[in-house]
Amino acid sequence: MRLRGRKGIREAIERQRDLIVLEPAIYKGKWAEVFGNDNPIHVELGMGKGRFISEMSKLNPHINFIGVDMYDELIRRASEKVRIAHGIEESETDVSLENIRLALFNIERIEEVFDANELQRIYLNFSDPWPKKKHARRRLTHAGFVNKYKEVLNGKGQIHFKTDSRSLFEFSLNSFSDLGLRMRNISLDLHGGFEEGFNPDHVMTEYETKFAGRGMNIFRCEVVIGEEALAEHLDSLQGEQQS
Amino acid sequence: MRLRGRKGIREAIERQRDLIVLEPAIYKGKWAEVFGNDNPIHVELGMGKGRFISEMSKLNPHINFIGVDMYDELIRRASEKVRIAHGIEESETDVSLENIRLALFNIERIEEVFDANELQRIYLNFSDPWPKKKHARRRLTHAGFVNKYKEVLNGKGQIHFKTDSRSLFEFSLNSFSDLGLRMRNISLDLHGGFEEGFNPDHVMTEYETKFAGRGMNIFRCEVVIGEEALAEHLDSLQGEQQS
Ligand SMILES: C[S@@+](CC[C@H](N)C(=O)[O-])C[C@H]1O[C@@H](n2cnc3c(N)ncnc32)[C@H](O)[C@@H]1O
Ligand SMILES: C[S@@+](CC[C@H](N)C(=O)[O-])C[C@H]1O[C@@H](n2cnc3c(N)ncnc32)[C@H](O)[C@@H]1O
Repeated sequence: MRLRGRKGIREAIERQRDLIVLEPAIYKGKWAEVFGNDNPIHVELGMGKGRFISEMSKLNPHINFIGVDMYDELIRRASEKVRIAHGIEESETDVSLENIRLALFNIERIEEVFDANELQRIYLNFSDPWPKKKHARRRLTHAGFVNKYKEVLNGKGQIHFKTDSRSLFEFSLNSFSDLGLRMRNISLDLHGGFEEGFNPDHVMTEYETKFAGRGMNIFRCEVVIGEEALAEHLDSLQGEQQS
Repeated sequence: MRLRGRKGIREAIERQRDLIVLEPAIYKGKWAEVFGNDNPIHVELGMGKGRFISEMSKLNPHINFIGVDMYDELIRRASEKVRIAHGIEESETDVSLENIRLALFNIERIEEVFDANELQRIYLNFSDPWPKKKHARRRLTHAGFVNKYKEVLNGKGQIHFKTDSRSLFEFSLNSFSDLGLRMRNISLDLHGGFEEGFNPDHVMTEYETKFAGRGMNIFRCEVVIGEEALAEHLDSLQGEQQS
């Protein structure tokens, strides 16, 4: 890993203003224009070093991905992963054909960056657990955040959440329940047996490779938010019962 | 522990036909008459040796308790615990003033034993996990069972579930979710920190003392079934948000 000072980070970011969006609020309601198509938009909130989002974006060319973090150093590091995954040279400065952007902002401001119904899926991967009760409001699954997610998600909207933190997962299950949201595919041991036939995302994040490698439990669930997604889900449950 | 043969078990049970109900279906719709009052009825399904139900019934005189198991040896052993907890001599054969009965039947037949709305709470404590997928229907939180519980529970009805089995808990969370039921006070570590202020039942079962004693994780959740219980729950959530 090359070590870079603050100046180096800023320079690297400036060179990639095509891939990295420093003032994302400008594009509120206009993200389809940024990508040049109407494909669904999936966002990872708190992407860290970007392993997950760069692989997902490579694997799913018909989905547009936005990786969000509030630290420019992480955005820069993620940009390297994205370029490697997509085979883009650092000298190329036009990623207009690509299905991924990296956005630097604080998730608290999410509704300034995305319009109502602009997103189809939010990934929360290994969000900071904020274990102290007095910091509960900072947890990304706190009602204060989830209500904002509901705003920006569309009719097919879902939240996919995974974490190694038992206490954050417990908090989150209660938070989703208390908001009356429908959960599904709850897993208390994502990398254990899949006897019940769950179909999780197989792409791992940096934290996931670290924790799963140590044999730690990974927790996961999906939250079905949009009306259309909910209707589809209920249909599929009925189908299962009949079969 | 005294060892008893089958004959001894049957004799001990016969001597206690006041406390032990061998043909519980006779009382369907008439359990209030059995107890001689209209107090709410809480049932433990699969009580085993009866530690939990005997303590709960002693601690809560204004609730009527029914402990259910399908093995007569367990019913007999539970009857000893109940007598000790309530200070009833084995020679006394009239427990008509007591708030507890033990019923021998298979939970699959629950709707033959209780009428619609006859119960206020169902406890499922450390139910058999039935880990093989082909046995999923035997799990006491399978939709097939839960739909029966919904029938016999009243407007204040709730299910309180605890287990040491991660896989059963995972299955159960999905089962309750898929049925569209409202969960609350989900705990992934009942005897760990209670930072979030949960208020679980402090009375432990036999299995619980064993597993918690070994430092194993205990999982727990409540399912709010009855309409009145649900309305109260939603009110209390609203209250929390405003405060
Ligand atoms: C524990 S890391 C997980 C990173 C990655 N998702 C993974 O699984 O490897 C959490 C990330 O969320 C970012 N983050 C936390 N709170 C944030 C906020 N309010 N706004 C933007 N990013 C945030 C942090 O900077 C950090 O990179
Ligand atoms: C693992 S033990 C737990 C006992 C006790 N609740 C505890 O926590 O210590 C499960 C109990 O459920 C009873 N049980 C399982 N399936 C049952 C059924 N279908 N009908 C009645 N009892 C059942 C078993 O006989 C056993 O006593």
